Amino acid sequence: MASPFITLTTDFGVSDGYIGAMKGVLLGINPEATIVDFSHDVPPQDIAYASFVLGTTYSYFCADTIHVAIVDPGVGTTRRPLLVVAPVGRFVVPDNGLITYVMPGSIHLAPQDGLSQASGIAVRKTALPEDWTAYVLDEPQYWRRSVSATFHGRDMFAPVAAHLSLGVSPTDMGTPVLDVMVFDTTSPTLYGETLYGEVIFVDRFGNLITNMTRSQLSGDVSEVEIGGVTVKGLNRSYAEEGGILALFGSHGYLEIAERNGNAAQSLGVKVGATVLVRS
Amino acid sequence: MASPFITLTTDFGVSDGYIGAMKGVLLGINPEATIVDFSHDVPPQDIAYASFVLGTTYSYFCADTIHVAIVDPGVGTTRRPLLVVAPVGRFVVPDNGLITYVMPGSIHLAPQDGLSQASGIAVRKTALPEDWTAYVLDEPQYWRRSVSATFHGRDMFAPVAAHLSLGVSPTDMGTPVLDVMVFDTTSPTLYGETLYGEVIFVDRFGNLITNMTRSQLSGDVSEVEIGGVTVKGLNRSYAEEGGILALFGSHGYLEIAERNGNAAQSLGVKVGATVLVRS
Amino acid sequence: MASPFITLTTDFGVSDGYIGAMKGVLLGINPEATIVDFSHDVPPQDIAYASFVLGTTYSYFCADTIHVAIVDPGVGTTRRPLLVVAPVGRFVVPDNGLITYVMPGSIHLAPQDGLSQASGIAVRKTALPEDWTAYVLDEPQYWRRSVSATFHGRDMFAPVAAHLSLGVSPTDMGTPVLDVMVFDTTSPTLYGETLYGEVIFVDRFGNLITNMTRSQLSGDVSEVEIGGVTVKGLNRSYAEEGGILALFGSHGYLEIAERNGNAAQSLGVKVGATVLVRS
Repeated sequence: MASPFITLTTDFGVSDGYIGAMKGVLLGINPEATIVDFSHDVPPQDIAYASFVLGTTYSYFCADTIHVAIVDPGVGTTRRPLLVVAPVGRFVVPDNGLITYVMPGSIHLAPQDGLSQASGIAVRKTALPEDWTAYVLDEPQYWRRSVSATFHGRDMFAPVAAHLSLGVSPTDMGTPVLDVMVFDTTSPTLYGETLYGEVIFVDRFGNLITNMTRSQLSGDVSEVEIGGVTVKGLNRSYAEEGGILALFGSHGYLEIAERNGNAAQSLGVKVGATVLVRS
Repeated sequence: MASPFITLTTDFGVSDGYIGAMKGVLLGINPEATIVDFSHDVPPQDIAYASFVLGTTYSYFCADTIHVAIVDPGVGTTRRPLLVVAPVGRFVVPDNGLITYVMPGSIHLAPQDGLSQASGIAVRKTALPEDWTAYVLDEPQYWRRSVSATFHGRDMFAPVAAHLSLGVSPTDMGTPVLDVMVFDTTSPTLYGETLYGEVIFVDRFGNLITNMTRSQLSGDVSEVEIGGVTVKGLNRSYAEEGGILALFGSHGYLEIAERNGNAAQSLGVKVGATVLVRS
Repeated sequence: MASPFITLTTDFGVSDGYIGAMKGVLLGINPEATIVDFSHDVPPQDIAYASFVLGTTYSYFCADTIHVAIVDPGVGTTRRPLLVVAPVGRFVVPDNGLITYVMPGSIHLAPQDGLSQASGIAVRKTALPEDWTAYVLDEPQYWRRSVSATFHGRDMFAPVAAHLSLGVSPTDMGTPVLDVMVFDTTSPTLYGETLYGEVIFVDRFGNLITNMTRSQLSGDVSEVEIGGVTVKGLNRSYAEEGGILALFGSHGYLEIAERNGNAAQSLGVKVGATVLVRS
């Protein structure tokens, strides 16, 4: 049987040798592993950004895929290293909120303080869903022999993922826990006829992804207001008309975009900005 | 028999999860696929830049390789999704000019308006070469079940490429067509003793790649003029002498470069700039 | 038996098609090769940067791994193309100093002139260690048929690496040599009670990696001075306290870092900056 895929989401960048070292450790333990890079260009220490990338990507992989995600400003402290086994996907992560957008229900939530303040992001304990399990990684025989206080990606998370891909049982790797840390998120709120939401992610094209899903927008959308600009109605694609436009993007959220342009730059808008939708 | 390689050229960047989602779809259909990233850092919407990367790279791969290239500002509109089968390479692309530099003869052509204006680039229909075939992708059984209007890379091009790599015949995937869209290009022009050409690509090193090939430069080159600077004769390598120099680069085009420097920055020159060669 | 891994470290960037062309040549010769990207974002022409990435990463891979590293401002000149066979790793490199940080003993050395001036870096011949061998690549049957003067990565280093991965013996590929080029490096120096060292690398997080290892710091560290700032004592992790801090990083060197920040930016410090340690 083929080895499960191992995906990587980090803030390590691709200039230094950090990713190479992690892959060396992974392939040293399982030379047959197929590694897929999600992103290594998560802004440094931005846990919520990484969580969004992970949460909107993992579901395109089969259920036994192992997702290693490391944005870990607390490395070497008491934050717990986790293996979270969900119905779709197994996640090797520091317990610092990274798992948030993978949790059921998170798709209609938005972080209260804006994704960019992730390193100072407030997290709280939440119970695991019923059909999930999680383990604190406390079995050193699945780590590198010598574990640094600064690079658990190489010394702990990579070897655990590699052993997992070889068939080691999660129950052998750590102690079960019933809760994990998530960051607080908020849903859009209705005041009168207006739904108030916010921007939760800005992609490479400058598309502003909001916390509003189709099911939250009852009836027709007559206008969308953001950054002092009002957009009439919804478009279907990025190309339908010039200027700033609004549409449901590929993540399933309401997006504000600009045809052949960069809406974030044109509007001067960042994560956390308020979006108003009138029906 | 081994699965053919699948290469990717996009403007999706590597920060967000878009590439991860595409790879998940590819590997979900063909877990044995070997995926090779050409570039994901094509400037947003720059069709001609992507076409140059694709056109100067695909020929290093064997004939059955599947090249997926997606710079697709017209996604969700009437622009056609294509599979183009050439003697060397099979190309899964939107029909928006992306195939231009793959077409025979394009190697000595330069775009009229400069590569950077690609999103507003003028394209026109051209007949396929005799030994080529092309298909409009109109068989939904080879797509994802639900196709968004904003991300055909994930929902249509990736699954088509994966099915192709499993051996599905191109004729099953769409309706044959005899023409494809290309952007207009121009050859260098001789006025008196001077050959006028232009810069068609700037690489990471700031090397200025022109539309002039060796065969177009009859006899010796006595001087090259660009950005107000005149270079005497041609060099053989980037290291032969200091300052701005001219040479034939690895793509086969005349290049203007700077030893241990960045010619584009030093000269303040961009794509579309005029180059004069005197023999 | 599985094919050995092939790793790549270059300054080619990931926007253009250069890496794709190299991979096409590699996979054309050995379709089973597993290629691992260390870094393609080495600053252009920065040999010492690439050498640091290579030297701090290769040892996480098994002994028969083939490491291709190309920062090659002298391509097309008389600089020699090399295959260096070490006890751990086989290195396909231009003979311009790139191998420096792989050589034994280099781990406690720092370049005299600062890593960023690498293209003008002074190199000198040094004898190979006893259990190492090296070969000047002078057997054209293992190259591409036509070799450009500007892209030996594609035309010489990639095919040599691919043939090597198929089991061709190093002795068939070139003529043995007993020396290789390295750049000059310096160790930290003790004046009175103060150890003087310097910054040799700045990573993506702005962590300042110095040339001081644990064994060179006898006894306790009472303070570290850099960029006009004095740090009291050493920390164990990046998260232990706010502000600028000093610790031993994952490479084994003394690092100056900033919790949830970028020490290089905050201190305005670059490669080559002086670091003082008082015991």
